[in-house]
Amino acid sequence: MSVLLSDAAGITGRLESALSGLAVFRTAGRQGFTREVFSESYRDSRQWVADQMKAAGLEVRRDEAGNLIGRLPGRNPAAPPLVTGSHTDTVDGGGRFDGVVGVLGALAAVQLLRESGTVLARDLLVVDFLGEESNPFGLSCLGSRALAGELTKADLARTDYSGRTLAAAYTDFGVDPSTLLGFGGWTGRRRPHAYLELHIEQGPTLEARGLPIGIVTAITGIERLVASFTGTPDHAGTRPMDDRRDAMVAAAEAVLAIRSEGCGAPEHGVATVTRLENASRSPNVVPSLVRLYGEVRSIDESWLWGTRRRLAAEIAARAAEYDVEADLSWSTDNAVVRASDSVQDLAGEAASAAGIDWMPIPSGATHDAVHMAALAPMGMIFVPSAGGKSHCPEEFTATDQIAAGVRVLADTLVRLDSHHFSVRPHAIQRSTP
Amino acid sequence: MSVLLSDAAGITGRLESALSGLAVFRTAGRQGFTREVFSESYRDSRQWVADQMKAAGLEVRRDEAGNLIGRLPGRNPAAPPLVTGSHTDTVDGGGRFDGVVGVLGALAAVQLLRESGTVLARDLLVVDFLGEESNPFGLSCLGSRALAGELTKADLARTDYSGRTLAAAYTDFGVDPSTLLGFGGWTGRRRPHAYLELHIEQGPTLEARGLPIGIVTAITGIERLVASFTGTPDHAGTRPMDDRRDAMVAAAEAVLAIRSEGCGAPEHGVATVTRLENASRSPNVVPSLVRLYGEVRSIDESWLWGTRRRLAAEIAARAAEYDVEADLSWSTDNAVVRASDSVQDLAGEAASAAGIDWMPIPSGATHDAVHMAALAPMGMIFVPSAGGKSHCPEEFTATDQIAAGVRVLADTLVRLDSHHFSVRPHAIQRSTP
Repeated sequence: MSVLLSDAAGITGRLESALSGLAVFRTAGRQGFTREVFSESYRDSRQWVADQMKAAGLEVRRDEAGNLIGRLPGRNPAAPPLVTGSHTDTVDGGGRFDGVVGVLGALAAVQLLRESGTVLARDLLVVDFLGEESNPFGLSCLGSRALAGELTKADLARTDYSGRTLAAAYTDFGVDPSTLLGFGGWTGRRRPHAYLELHIEQGPTLEARGLPIGIVTAITGIERLVASFTGTPDHAGTRPMDDRRDAMVAAAEAVLAIRSEGCGAPEHGVATVTRLENASRSPNVVPSLVRLYGEVRSIDESWLWGTRRRLAAEIAARAAEYDVEADLSWSTDNAVVRASDSVQDLAGEAASAAGIDWMPIPSGATHDAVHMAALAPMGMIFVPSAGGKSHCPEEFTATDQIAAGVRVLADTLVRLDSHHFSVRPHAIQRSTP
Repeated sequence: MSVLLSDAAGITGRLESALSGLAVFRTAGRQGFTREVFSESYRDSRQWVADQMKAAGLEVRRDEAGNLIGRLPGRNPAAPPLVTGSHTDTVDGGGRFDGVVGVLGALAAVQLLRESGTVLARDLLVVDFLGEESNPFGLSCLGSRALAGELTKADLARTDYSGRTLAAAYTDFGVDPSTLLGFGGWTGRRRPHAYLELHIEQGPTLEARGLPIGIVTAITGIERLVASFTGTPDHAGTRPMDDRRDAMVAAAEAVLAIRSEGCGAPEHGVATVTRLENASRSPNVVPSLVRLYGEVRSIDESWLWGTRRRLAAEIAARAAEYDVEADLSWSTDNAVVRASDSVQDLAGEAASAAGIDWMPIPSGATHDAVHMAALAPMGMIFVPSAGGKSHCPEEFTATDQIAAGVRVLADTLVRLDSHHFSVRPHAIQRSTP
C-alpha cells in the first residue's frame, strides 16, 4: 500500500480544522451556514480559502471569472493540467459540506501528495469555482460555466429580484464583465487533461448500503415541466359538482400521475411536483387557472424522453375527464452527462487498492463537473451524507469518511496523471433525441 | 289576477333603464362593473340610488351603519315593518345583477304597489345594505350585520392590506364608528315583521330546468378547511421515490378526496379546494409544507358534519400512506340558515297565482338575508342566471325574468303584510352539533 493510501494521521485533524475555519464565514441573521455567491461572507471567505491554498504550497490566483485557482507545479508545465475542486458558496440555510468537501478535500490531497514525496508530471489545479449554487439570477455554476466558455452576454443581462444585473453583481465583486466574456476560459488548446471532483452524495444511498465511496457513473438529466390547467371560474357555492371545470382537481391528478411515473423508473429516476399556483386567491371560486411546476430526473435519456411522452398523454387524459384543458411545456434544464469510463475505472482501482468498498452511483444533483465535462474526461467521487440530508444545517459527513474520499481522490489523480485517454475531449452528450 | 300580477307594461322598461343607470358607476381601469364598498364609484352611486328611491316615492335616509333605507309609509306606522332589499356593491370584476336586482327590483315593486293603488298596513322599508360582498377587511355583509347587532368592536379593528382599519374606512365614508357600534340596529323591539329578498340565483339550476322563479328553502352552511401537510424537505434529485415524505402528493390526494366527498352529497352539497400553498419556492426540493384551503357547503347540517368527520379520516389515511402528517383545522363560516316556511308558502302562492312556474331551491351563496334571519322570518326569491355565471362581467339575467321576480316579490309582500307568524323571531339556527 502506498503512502497515499495509508491512514495518514494528519488528514482527519487537518480536515476538521479546515471545515471549522471555513464555517466561521456565514451571513449573520440567516439560518444555517449561509454563504451565498456575491455576499459579504462569501467575499471574506475567499481570502481565507486563498490563504489555505498558499499554506498547502500552491501558487494562487483569481482568474478572469472570479474562480480561485491554486497550482501545484508538475515536472512538465506544458502538459495539459489535471484539475480538481468544487465550490465554497452555499444555498440560503445551507450546511458545511456541500462543495466545501471538494475544495478542502483537494487541499488535503495535495498535502498527502507532498508528504508522500509524489511529484506529478502535470500541473495540478485546485479550483474553488465561483457560485455553483442557484442564485437570484437563475444561473448556477457561474465559475465552471465561464471556464467551459458557456457564459453569454445574455446571461450577464439577467436580473435579480431588485432588478440588478448579473454584470453589475460581477463588477461589485471585482470581476470585470467584459474581460469575463472575452477570456475564453479553458476551451481550445487550454483544455485540461482530466477533471475529478470530490463531493458529498446529498442522498441516502451510500449510507443505506453501508458503503464509504461512490464513483459517479453519470450526472442526471433534468427535464422541467410547467403545466397550465384551464377550467371555468364558477362560484364554489352555486355550481354543482357535476357541472364544474375545476383546474385544481385536474392539477391534483397530474401530481399523482407524475409521482407514479417517478416510482416506475427502471433505475435512477425521480419525478417531483415542487409547486402549484392558483391564479385566483378568492376563497369561493372554483379554480380556473392552476400552474404546476415539476421536474423529472434520470441518467437514462430514453426513460426521460419516454416520461415526457407518457406524462403528456396521461395528464391530458385525466384533465379531459374534468373537462379541463392541460397545456404542458417541457424544457431541458440539464442534459445527461456521463462520467468518463476511464476515470471511473481508475477511481475504482484506487479505492480497491486502499481496501475501501465502493459502488457505482448516479448523481441526482448537478455539479460544476457538468460543465468541466465539456472540456475534459470527467469523474466524481462521492462520500456519504448522514440521513441523505443536504442544503440544510443538518448536512453532515464524518471527517473520517471525508478522509477516505481524500485518499481515493489523491491516488486517482496520480493514476490520471500518467493515463492516456484514447477518446478526448469528452464533450457533453446532449440528450436531444 | 290582481293588477300586481299582470304583465304591467312599465316594469321591464323601467328596470332596463335603472340597471343601465346604475351600471354607469364603475371604477375606471378595472375589469367588468367594479363598484367595491368604500370606493369612490360606490360612494357616487349611493346618491343615485337615493334619488331613485325618492323618485319611487319613498322617504329616504342613511342609517347609522351606512345603509340606504327608503320608506313607503303604511296605514299603521307603529306595526313592525316589512323589509326588502339587497346590495349594490360588487366584487372586483363583478357584473350588473348580483344584489342590484334586489334593490332596483324592490323599487319596481313599490311602483307596482303604488300604481295598483295598494296601500299596505305596515311600513315597507327598501334597504340598500352597505357592502355585502367580501372585502379586504375579510368581513362581508357589513350593513346587514350592523342591523342584526352582530358587528363588534373587534370587527372594526380589522385591517386591509395597507393596514387601514375598518373603522377608518367607515370614518372616511362618513359613518361614525362609535355611533355605529352603539345604535343597536333592528334588535329588540325594532325587529321587522318579515324580510324578503329578490336575488339572482348565481348558479345554473333554474336555467337548466327552464323555470323562471326559485323560492329559497335555506341558505347554505359553509365549513372552511385549512389543512397543513408536513413532510421532509429532501433534495428532489437525490432522494429516491420510495424514501420521500412528499407533502404535495398528500395534498393532491386530499384535493381528490374532497371532490369525491362533494360528488357524494345527497342533495345540495359542494366541496371545493380553492388554493394550495407551498412554503418553499425552490425548484429542486421535495415539498415539505403544503397548505390546502377548501370549503364544503350544504343546507344539510348532518351531511356537513359527517363530511368533516369523513374527510378528516380519509385525508389523514391517505397522507399516512406517504408518511406525511396532516393537520386539519375546520371553522364554520356560515351556519345553515333556513328560510321561514310561511314566507316560502306565501311566495309560492304568489307565484302560482301569477301563473309563474317555480321550484324550491337551496342557496349555495350567502346573502344579507342570513343576517336578517336573526331578526325576522326570512325568505328569498331567485331569478335565473344565464349560464349560471356570477361575479364576472358576463353575469346576466333578462329584464323580463327580473320583472317576473318583481311581480312575485310585490305580491308576496302584500301577503306578508297581513300574515300572522306564530313563531317569531326566527333566529339563526346554528349548525353546531
